[in-house]
Amino acid sequence: MGKNVVILGASGYTGAELVRLIAGHPDINIVGLSAERKAGQQMGDVFPHLRHMNLPQLVKIDELSFENVDLVFCALPHATSQAVIRALPDAVKVVDLSADFRLRDEAEYTKWYGLPHDAPDLQKIAVYGLTEFYRDDIAKARLVAGTGCNAATGQFALRPLIAAGVIGLDDIVIDMKVGVSGAGRALKENLLHAELSEGVHAYGVGGVHRHLAEFDQEFSAVAGRKVEVQFTPHLAPFNRGILATCYVSGDAAAIHETFVSQYVDEPFIEVLPIGEHPSVRHVRGSNFCHLGVVADRKEGRAIVIAALDNLTKGSSGQALHNANLMLSLPETAGLTMAPVFP
Amino acid sequence: MGKNVVILGASGYTGAELVRLIAGHPDINIVGLSAERKAGQQMGDVFPHLRHMNLPQLVKIDELSFENVDLVFCALPHATSQAVIRALPDAVKVVDLSADFRLRDEAEYTKWYGLPHDAPDLQKIAVYGLTEFYRDDIAKARLVAGTGCNAATGQFALRPLIAAGVIGLDDIVIDMKVGVSGAGRALKENLLHAELSEGVHAYGVGGVHRHLAEFDQEFSAVAGRKVEVQFTPHLAPFNRGILATCYVSGDAAAIHETFVSQYVDEPFIEVLPIGEHPSVRHVRGSNFCHLGVVADRKEGRAIVIAALDNLTKGSSGQALHNANLMLSLPETAGLTMAPVFP
Amino acid sequence: MGKNVVILGASGYTGAELVRLIAGHPDINIVGLSAERKAGQQMGDVFPHLRHMNLPQLVKIDELSFENVDLVFCALPHATSQAVIRALPDAVKVVDLSADFRLRDEAEYTKWYGLPHDAPDLQKIAVYGLTEFYRDDIAKARLVAGTGCNAATGQFALRPLIAAGVIGLDDIVIDMKVGVSGAGRALKENLLHAELSEGVHAYGVGGVHRHLAEFDQEFSAVAGRKVEVQFTPHLAPFNRGILATCYVSGDAAAIHETFVSQYVDEPFIEVLPIGEHPSVRHVRGSNFCHLGVVADRKEGRAIVIAALDNLTKGSSGQALHNANLMLSLPETAGLTMAPVFP
Amino acid sequence: MGKNVVILGASGYTGAELVRLIAGHPDINIVGLSAERKAGQQMGDVFPHLRHMNLPQLVKIDELSFENVDLVFCALPHATSQAVIRALPDAVKVVDLSADFRLRDEAEYTKWYGLPHDAPDLQKIAVYGLTEFYRDDIAKARLVAGTGCNAATGQFALRPLIAAGVIGLDDIVIDMKVGVSGAGRALKENLLHAELSEGVHAYGVGGVHRHLAEFDQEFSAVAGRKVEVQFTPHLAPFNRGILATCYVSGDAAAIHETFVSQYVDEPFIEVLPIGEHPSVRHVRGSNFCHLGVVADRKEGRAIVIAALDNLTKGSSGQALHNANLMLSLPETAGLTMAPVFP
Repeated sequence: MGKNVVILGASGYTGAELVRLIAGHPDINIVGLSAERKAGQQMGDVFPHLRHMNLPQLVKIDELSFENVDLVFCALPHATSQAVIRALPDAVKVVDLSADFRLRDEAEYTKWYGLPHDAPDLQKIAVYGLTEFYRDDIAKARLVAGTGCNAATGQFALRPLIAAGVIGLDDIVIDMKVGVSGAGRALKENLLHAELSEGVHAYGVGGVHRHLAEFDQEFSAVAGRKVEVQFTPHLAPFNRGILATCYVSGDAAAIHETFVSQYVDEPFIEVLPIGEHPSVRHVRGSNFCHLGVVADRKEGRAIVIAALDNLTKGSSGQALHNANLMLSLPETAGLTMAPVFP
Repeated sequence: MGKNVVILGASGYTGAELVRLIAGHPDINIVGLSAERKAGQQMGDVFPHLRHMNLPQLVKIDELSFENVDLVFCALPHATSQAVIRALPDAVKVVDLSADFRLRDEAEYTKWYGLPHDAPDLQKIAVYGLTEFYRDDIAKARLVAGTGCNAATGQFALRPLIAAGVIGLDDIVIDMKVGVSGAGRALKENLLHAELSEGVHAYGVGGVHRHLAEFDQEFSAVAGRKVEVQFTPHLAPFNRGILATCYVSGDAAAIHETFVSQYVDEPFIEVLPIGEHPSVRHVRGSNFCHLGVVADRKEGRAIVIAALDNLTKGSSGQALHNANLMLSLPETAGLTMAPVFP
Repeated sequence: MGKNVVILGASGYTGAELVRLIAGHPDINIVGLSAERKAGQQMGDVFPHLRHMNLPQLVKIDELSFENVDLVFCALPHATSQAVIRALPDAVKVVDLSADFRLRDEAEYTKWYGLPHDAPDLQKIAVYGLTEFYRDDIAKARLVAGTGCNAATGQFALRPLIAAGVIGLDDIVIDMKVGVSGAGRALKENLLHAELSEGVHAYGVGGVHRHLAEFDQEFSAVAGRKVEVQFTPHLAPFNRGILATCYVSGDAAAIHETFVSQYVDEPFIEVLPIGEHPSVRHVRGSNFCHLGVVADRKEGRAIVIAALDNLTKGSSGQALHNANLMLSLPETAGLTMAPVFP
Repeated sequence: MGKNVVILGASGYTGAELVRLIAGHPDINIVGLSAERKAGQQMGDVFPHLRHMNLPQLVKIDELSFENVDLVFCALPHATSQAVIRALPDAVKVVDLSADFRLRDEAEYTKWYGLPHDAPDLQKIAVYGLTEFYRDDIAKARLVAGTGCNAATGQFALRPLIAAGVIGLDDIVIDMKVGVSGAGRALKENLLHAELSEGVHAYGVGGVHRHLAEFDQEFSAVAGRKVEVQFTPHLAPFNRGILATCYVSGDAAAIHETFVSQYVDEPFIEVLPIGEHPSVRHVRGSNFCHLGVVADRKEGRAIVIAALDNLTKGSSGQALHNANLMLSLPETAGLTMAPVFP
């Protein structure tokens, strides 16, 4: 039997990654796939790595029926998602992978995304999709807002530490190295292989990256006061993965203990022994997040490093994890594949 | 319950790939892992991408018990395998991933590998592990010899064509582009990132690559006469995958029909529509082989292109496929994951 | 003093490469740079690696004056070049890097490029820009047509062999591996880093790549009869370089002797000792072409491999080489920099 | 005539880079090349990209004559350099590219390198080779100690700011992304292409990287008090280049003015307009260092980013720059080539 899902925006990387993951899921059927500009094509033409699968043809959203659909994954660009999700039948649950429902404060949404929010009522009921921290709310939610991939990585590294009070709140620096799939399939000159390979560059420098809005919202909430971090993402020449190097004040041992205690039962979070630190290549293609803590030579300073695959744990894997909870399926179904290395 | 397997030589890439695949297999348990030089370490230390798994510690071969073991995967270097496999209990089935049992003719083995064969009796009973063409023999075999990864790729492209007589036998050219994991984890200067990236080079030029011995043996057998191809592999800067571009004389339509007819029921071989051709990036991390045929502007000439992942379909996936047959398990168990793209 | 040059189409890779090379040229001044869509910008904004240079602002072509200009490099897209070059003053010499003047036969141009030729009079006087084979004509020419980068690579490997009659003419196969800068700076999905890296694929399969027109024209001319080769280019994940693996019938020793004799005095062609073969990584960023010959195990068959940098020797370096001849400057000026490795 | 130089340790990347640069130098002749393990080979066999050059054969150091030699570049591993340099004739000037003479304090050398210093008298007279800050001393020196490549990058970004008092001294964080050639040509598993590509990882985490010793020495000297920075290097999958992202407290405008004022006459330092920031891909293969400053959204915080090519400006280009000063040659000779992009 299984549950029936539809993927909206299936021609982007997160849509394709959802299909890849659901291909290994025992209880979920894909009954609809939309892609506005590529409507009429087969998924296997748009993504030849999926050509062996028996999938519905890509259609426009308004050609889809949502009858008998249990859940919709919405992988559309931000701003587009609001109207589409508002138009869905109430009986259909939704996991939104865009940025549209991540921020609980309408004014914050407008500040960071430059537009008034078009569905403030839905914004209010949306649950922030960081599974490990909102698990119970997610299980009961109708609408879950998938987090930013950078936002997820930084929160796995810092959120329990802020909550536990084991690090300082005023001097947090997050330096991220992000794989190119994080920038999506858009045709931009700086994403061409000839431009991007053999180099690295920062982007969104100076505190303008939109995932900061999520850090501000979530870190301030758990701290009970305003927390503003410094955050600089860098685009690096690998396809998948985010490495977050976090510079904090605090005791490395206390930080590590906090991690162990927080994550001991989490199926997808691996806390490394103290002094070790992770690499993105060891989580590639998987739903795992690896965390490491190292004390600095400077008294009272520590480095916390988190690694995950932006398309899986940072996006589509997280979405499926949440869908499992929302559909009362085994939480880890379809998500336990080992990373692909080398 | 499931079947119990041991992996010998687990610290190389094919060993790690076996573990990755078996992690998703419902009916196989890994009960032993050997690695001579890394004995005493945990698999998760040698391959951090497997750190979330609960695996036996790496030990030396002679520390292993083979009681209650159903099958051994032997991923040792060639020449080493012979003595090790000879020493295994008769009741244990064996899939050997080395080159030691691929050639049926002792003299050929000596010619290509420079050594007398040490277990000629086993060599005689070994079944050549190209699943799609030796399926029945493999199901009954005690010892299966996994093929060379290049040899597998070339045979998927050419073997049915030679058998069907739809291509000329005297002017076959196979030009391959091979990912670096095909060269293994050996410490060689030309495998360093700084040396290998941002370029491409041929190796084994002039008909000296050992996988030619497999082409000679298998192609001659199906043709019923001696067939010698030209074959030049190139090392290219990607981690996984082999693309074989084959230049043949023959009619493209007849070639394509032969493929469709040969492979129609094969779970892992995808024949593309005539005129289309595959890319290695669309089989990465999977057990699929994609095949394409294009007619050339030169009358009577065609190009046949095959793509597979050398570590999966070319090696460890093939080995698991064969093990499933030998252990009377569902043939595709543990092997149906979709490719990882991008 | 020096000679004054203008570069039209300076915002593409070949334009930028010309600027890089001329930066090290003692006798050439860049007095004008055009780029239609980026007119008004500084070259250092479009190509930050050139920001240290004191260069003219990018303007539209019709804003340029050609007074006191000795030579124009025209790096515009094909079809665009014809009208632009026809409009230049007669006193200005021209090196065209597009495909517009490579083919001497109007009908061939139309067949391969799908358009009638717009400047057939100029087409007749244009000299084919393969410096090593048209040196004297180039020195006297007003208009030189830079060759295709693949066409240059294949001709360095095969042209002297065809001329000398040391290889068969009816079974030549050229398999090329081409770096991504060869595809230019166009915004295409398959040129994105996430799509192109970690894989390899053929393109223009079956004899449809336009550089075949140059092979046909030039090889037939030197053979004195029609010669049609098979040619399959592959896009591989490195930025610069072309490796041409050529499969021919002929004696390797005779081939090698022909190379040595042909190229002994050439400043930019390096013939490797027989049995050795080149890699693109060893010519990166330079104007050198490396050539190797290896005998195959099949009697009477040989492999010829050529490597060069598509942007330098295959395009802008060739253009500057030709410009030096046309301007009576030392032939190798600005072109002797060693390759950049690693 | 020109000056005669010898390169010791010519089979490593910095040795080869010196040869590449000197190939374009009008006034320097290479009269000797040493490589202990590869003695007897031609440089063109060890580095085929240099095969077109007419270079001395590689020999062991004790086979070299230093008569008529003006300067020796010593590119040997640290600890080896001391004895070798002590044995050179007094009349020969020396640029050492190892770490042996960078630290003025013997105890510091022992602390960071784990060995007593073997030539403390030379250590005392050695001049620290950061050209832009020790130009006059270098011009008069007999022995110049090339800086660490990371140390150079960090100092270009921070040294003038510390000297000018425009940034805080107690909360400096330097996060670096380093290309793989920085790790040298050593045969290590984690430098294999299959291991290193498609990922990124930190190393020397927690304040244990030896280049910190240079930061401590130099930053404390210019500050007039002890300065300890936090520094985490990351190995990223590109061949050349270092990007240093520095998190500081201070006013971005004041920082930018300090840069402009410090570097206005420097031939190789490019200060970008305020708010812009550099990429390593735009300095590849060149001797340029690009510097950018961006204000953070957090009041009083700024990000300073520096980019250079570790093998050129970070090592061999710096060495040649210093040699030019020591030999009274034009300061920029052999170093003005434009970066290679793409």
